[in-house]
Parts: sequence; C-alpha cells; structure tokens
Amino acid sequence: MTPTAEIISIGDELLYGQTLDTNSHWISGKLDEFNIKVYQKTTIGDNEEQILKAFAEAAARADIVLITGGLGPTKDDLTKPLLAKYFGVKLVRNEEALREISALFAKASREVTAVNVQQAELPANCEKITNPVGTAPGMWFYENNTVFVAMPGVPYEMKRIMTDSVLPKLQKMFGENIIHHHIIKTIGITESSLSDLIEDWELSLPKHMKLAYLPTMGQVKLRLTAMGTHLDTLMREVDDQEKRIFPKISKYVYGYGDEQIEGIIGQMLIKNNQTLGVAESCTGGYLAHLITSIPGSSKYFKGTIVAYANEVKMNELEVKAKDIETYGAVSEQVALSMARGIRNKLKTDVGIATTGIAGPDGGSEEKPVGTVWIAYSDQYISIAKKFNFARDRKFIIHWTALAALNLFRLKYSAK
Amino acid sequence: MTPTAEIISIGDELLYGQTLDTNSHWISGKLDEFNIKVYQKTTIGDNEEQILKAFAEAAARADIVLITGGLGPTKDDLTKPLLAKYFGVKLVRNEEALREISALFAKASREVTAVNVQQAELPANCEKITNPVGTAPGMWFYENNTVFVAMPGVPYEMKRIMTDSVLPKLQKMFGENIIHHHIIKTIGITESSLSDLIEDWELSLPKHMKLAYLPTMGQVKLRLTAMGTHLDTLMREVDDQEKRIFPKISKYVYGYGDEQIEGIIGQMLIKNNQTLGVAESCTGGYLAHLITSIPGSSKYFKGTIVAYANEVKMNELEVKAKDIETYGAVSEQVALSMARGIRNKLKTDVGIATTGIAGPDGGSEEKPVGTVWIAYSDQYISIAKKFNFARDRKFIIHWTALAALNLFRLKYSAK
Repeated sequence: MTPTAEIISIGDELLYGQTLDTNSHWISGKLDEFNIKVYQKTTIGDNEEQILKAFAEAAARADIVLITGGLGPTKDDLTKPLLAKYFGVKLVRNEEALREISALFAKASREVTAVNVQQAELPANCEKITNPVGTAPGMWFYENNTVFVAMPGVPYEMKRIMTDSVLPKLQKMFGENIIHHHIIKTIGITESSLSDLIEDWELSLPKHMKLAYLPTMGQVKLRLTAMGTHLDTLMREVDDQEKRIFPKISKYVYGYGDEQIEGIIGQMLIKNNQTLGVAESCTGGYLAHLITSIPGSSKYFKGTIVAYANEVKMNELEVKAKDIETYGAVSEQVALSMARGIRNKLKTDVGIATTGIAGPDGGSEEKPVGTVWIAYSDQYISIAKKFNFARDRKFIIHWTALAALNLFRLKYSAK
Repeated sequence: MTPTAEIISIGDELLYGQTLDTNSHWISGKLDEFNIKVYQKTTIGDNEEQILKAFAEAAARADIVLITGGLGPTKDDLTKPLLAKYFGVKLVRNEEALREISALFAKASREVTAVNVQQAELPANCEKITNPVGTAPGMWFYENNTVFVAMPGVPYEMKRIMTDSVLPKLQKMFGENIIHHHIIKTIGITESSLSDLIEDWELSLPKHMKLAYLPTMGQVKLRLTAMGTHLDTLMREVDDQEKRIFPKISKYVYGYGDEQIEGIIGQMLIKNNQTLGVAESCTGGYLAHLITSIPGSSKYFKGTIVAYANEVKMNELEVKAKDIETYGAVSEQVALSMARGIRNKLKTDVGIATTGIAGPDGGSEEKPVGTVWIAYSDQYISIAKKFNFARDRKFIIHWTALAALNLFRLKYSAK
C-alpha cells in the first residue's frame, strides 16, 4: 500500500498573504519521488485550538503528518508545546540537542542564551532530529501507527532536515521497494510534442517503471522511475530504457538531474578552454544574468554588450546602418552582425546574440511582438534563427534567452 | 465583527509538487487588504469524498469559502458538479454565461464546441460571475449564512474574477467600513531600523489607522490603512499622517503603490529627457535586466557593458591596468572608471557601475565574498560607495543591483 501524507504549515504570516508557502510545494515533490501520496495540505495560524484540531484531523487521514513552522523561540511559536499537549507528555531537555545548539553558537562565536537552552527542550516521546543549520531541532514521533514530524519553517533548515534525516527514515519505514529516479532534461520541444514522439516507448515500459513529464517555463524534464528490490538492477534497467529512446530525443536532451542549460554550456567551453561573449538587445541583460548565475562563469564568460539603442549596435557591434534601414533592427542580418561583432570586440571564441520585440509596444503586422532573431558565431560558422514567442514581455525575454543558450548548445557541440 | 474566510485549492497537481499554489497566497493578501481574516487554507486533490468534506468543514468554520481549481471541461474537474451535489441542486444552462463564452470564441475566430456549452451549465442556486478572460464562469453562492465562491485555477483568470467581481461584492456584503490603503515603498533601510525610526509615530496613530511592514528582498513596503465611513476623510487623514512622518523617512522613500525602483529611475530620466548606460561586473547583466524589464525602457536606456573579464574593463571601460594592479578589480577606483567609461562609451548622460565578489569563490581576508563597489557618474559628479552583502551569490547579485538603482535615485534626484 502506498503510504499517505498530510502537510501542515503553521504561521499567521502564511494566512495574511505575507509569506508564500514554498515549503509544502517542495515537500510534496520530494514525497512524490519516494512514492508517498500527499492527501491534503493544511495551512493554519498560530492558534492553539486550530493547531490541535489540525493534528487530530491529519492523524485520522494520513500515515505521515509533516509539520513546518512555529518552532522559533518566541511566544507565538506554539508547535512544540502543542505537540507535547497533543501527545500528553512533558517537555524535557534533550542534552544532545543542547550540545548541537551550543556547537552552532560556538562556531559563530556567540553565547548561548536562556532562550536557546529552551529550544533544546523537546516533548518526552519524540526522537530529536538534528538540524545542522539552525537552532530549532526537528522532532520525530510515532504514535498510534502515525508518524508525526515537526520541522522549522525556514526553507533551507527544513530542506536539510528532510534530506539528511526525514526522507531516509520514511524510506526505511515505508519503502517496500527501492525507488530509482533518472531525470532527463530537454529543451526546444513542448511537452505535447515530446509526448507524441515517445508515446510508443512510454507504453512499452515494464510495469515497475513509470514516466513523468515535468514541464517548467521553456523546458521539459522527463523523470523515469523504477521500483524494485535491487538498486543495481534498477539502474541498469533505467539505463537500458534510456538507450532505447535516446536516439529519438538526443537533439533535445541537454543534461541530467540538477544540471542547468547555462551550466552545461559553461562545461562545454571549459572543456575546450574557450571563451564566450554575448550581445543582447531584447533580452536586455537577462541572457548574461543566466550565464553569470553559475559560480565560476568568469572562467569562460568575458562579457556582454547590451545594445538597446541602434547607435550602440552600430558603434559597438559591427551592425551596419544600411542593414537596420533595409531589414530593421530585428532581422537575420542584424543578429548575425551582433554575434560576429561581440566576438571580435571582446576577442572571444564564440559570440551569441539576441534581437527581438519584447513588447508590449513596438510590434507591427509584419513583425508582431514576440518576433525574435538569435544568432551564433564562431570561427567556423555564423548562423541565425527566427522565433515567434507571442506572449508577454517577461515570457519573451525568458524564452529568447533559453533559445540562445540552446542554439549555442546545438551549434557548439556540432563541431 | 471581522469576517473569516477559508481558501480551498483543488487539484492533484498541487499535491504532487508539480504546481506551486500562488493563488491562495495572492487571495490572502487581497482579503487582508479588505480586512477579512483568512482562518485556514486547505489543498486537496480531485477526489469527490475529500472535496465534499472540505466544503462542509469550511462552511462550519468560515463566513466566506473561496474555492479555486477544478472548473475545467474535463472529467477530472469535479468542483462544479460537487457544488451542485453539496447544495442538492441541479446543473442548469445559464444563457448569459453561454453568450459570454460564445463571444470569447467569436473573438478568437473559433467555434464553440459541446464541451464549451457544458461550461455554461451552472448549479441552479448560484449567481454566475463573469470570467472576462476564460471559458469557465465563476460562481457565487449564499446558503446558510455562508458565501461560497468558485473560481478557475488559472491565476490570471482567478485574479480578474476576484478584482472585477468578488472583492467588490464581499466589500458590499461584509464591509461595515470603507478601507483605504496607502503603500509607501522604501529602499536602503532594514525593517528593524525603519521600525526604530518611526516607532513613536506608529504608536501615536489613531485607533482607526494601522501600519503594516511588508518586507521583500532588499526593500520594505509600509502599508498605512485607515478604516471609516467617508473615503475623502480617510484619504485626508492618511495624507496628514504621511506628512508627519515623511521628513524622517524621505531619504528611503522611492515610490508609492505598485511603483518599482527600476520604473522610478526611468521616470526621472524621461522627465529630463536624459539617457542611462550601465557597466556591470559582479551583477553580470542582472542590473540591465531589471532596468529593461520596464516596458518602454528603450526610451532612456541605451545599453550595458558587462565586463566580467578585466581586459574588457580595460579595453571597453577606461579602467586602467595600474588601478587593477594597485587597488584590485573590486575597488573605488575601478567602479568610478567603469561608471565614467560607460557614460563616454555609449554617450549617455548618466552611467552606473557595479564591481564586487559574488562568490562562492574569489573572496579574501581583506575583501570577503559580498564586498561590492557601486558607482554613479554624470556631468557634475562621480561617486562610489562600498557595501558588504555577506550572503549567497544570488542574494549578492540582487542586492548589488538594487543598491545601484538606489544610488542613482539619490544622486540623480539631488540635482
């Protein structure tokens, strides 16, 4: 039987529209990876009656109750005393928790205060879960066939506790099977087209394997999951299945797992000890921002010229006035001149460029908002490609930047 | 009595970690503005038993039940038939809804299908709420002293229905008072420092006025709310209160309501018919991205040079090799040369520049990760300022860009 879970998020700030609850979203994604079904999510305020009622209702519905928030050291943090009340136990000092908190403070050269000592007092029936990055320990309860877990609401503390302790413990307790995930990351194809392309293969997968499409803006992740008893076997099976389908989708696959397209192009450049320069018009710096969001990008990324004004395109990027006049600033000719121009200007091995109409104004019948040219140039080839991203400004900027990174991936790897 | 609300979000995709629920966050913020207290948020899947139970439980707790999701035309969309079942009524065709749906299709030159005709069938006891941007109408019920509202889960459809219809109807029904909000946007000061600065004033506010601090990354919004019976009076009172405190906070206030700092600097430039150029190192294009995220920014923004490599700083931006050697690339001298350099290079009236260590590598004892210099230059003054944003890469990039926009605001407006 698939175990069911309920997530309870506690905190007034979640009900006033102040804080967006990303915790329960992240937790549901992780539980899904572990084949645990989330049955309900409940968000409530810092209110005794409500919290106790939510505990009881959740316990009646689910095998696992995951609670975030309300573990801080102040008076409005009620989760810990109410868990003690709910289970009818006392708070007792957990010496190991106190040592862990003291160690954290020592590391930051700060004194442990009375408030922090209080944070080491936990309900008598719980198992302490180490919080390696904060002063509120996690708690694990198992009563009446239901697991209760309480974690801080600070996202990076909750994530560490889940990853280091809670998910392995849940897998040990509920995992009849070993679960192996393999994530294939694609770009340049929509979810429905990808689905059409691999439908036969998907239908032919053995029963203990399943495929999930996880689309994000401009990309589709494929998650291939295998369940069984031996990890080695599962890994081999997943590998074999990927080999079967890879030839059909290889054009769109840029990476695996947590890899990002902006990181992948960096790896390609580092491998060849080459450098990149960028010329942007409609993306206005966003393409450079994606590239430089990768730590260590200074190794291969020399710089960008954002040429918003036509005179900057002409003065800095080899764009000819005649081309702008004849073809317009959003054209194949201008995109190519920009890509070649930035390469010469910054003396890089490769140049990529974007020019387009991000809107909301500036469109015409011939070139509506969303018309975009991107270009790639290296010592062997220079090529430009046209796109139509007919959506809002933010979307057009994002998709154009992704398309430029993808053009780099396809053309640079083709050598 | 303050009315209470519960928000029910329906959809399997919200429980699998696939879709982040931003709807309930947005709705809670809006209800808070209308002085309606959200008591609980519940997220459930496309499951009959669960949905009916959630309706009943919410009705027992709240005066207002707001439901999003499950209104699509496919079989797994259960909200509408289950509302009919819950209230013990039939689905009947709403002719006005059908006319509205037909009009939407006519506009898009598409034929109305049988499925769409079905979307015009609504529970007999509901009042149809027009959906101006989609084919699933909203529904308004009032039974046993509880308001039920059902809306589509598509965020922009839900927002239009809330703004155009639901919030005005709720205000009419529950609003004993008129509520007037005034949002003051600040930058360059933390929430706690701002609170220290204006505490006396806050404590002196009359009983029918209240102040909320709404911090976002690098900025703090102050929301001053007045409740009463005459809008004119409330607006005058809020205005008077702001006048009392403004001299103390004027340095930090950059705008009101929905204004953004990147838009404000654009307005300042447009007013004076002047242009801006940007030179970026550590922000890597993000500063330009913020500036160009504003529609119409091409009127005043000419371009950016992202000089990630030192040679680009020297070749393109008047940075002297000697300065880099003597003071380092992250220094007052280099920041000033970059700001002056971009102004000369792109022939703009103003130049702003960033150089810093975004990490995770590249820090030293003397200049740890997070050390940042930003500079401003126009025909009268050139000035640089140092910051220490000791956090992660993403944070450092964001705060540096905001600090640069704020330096522009302070120095440009000083003329």
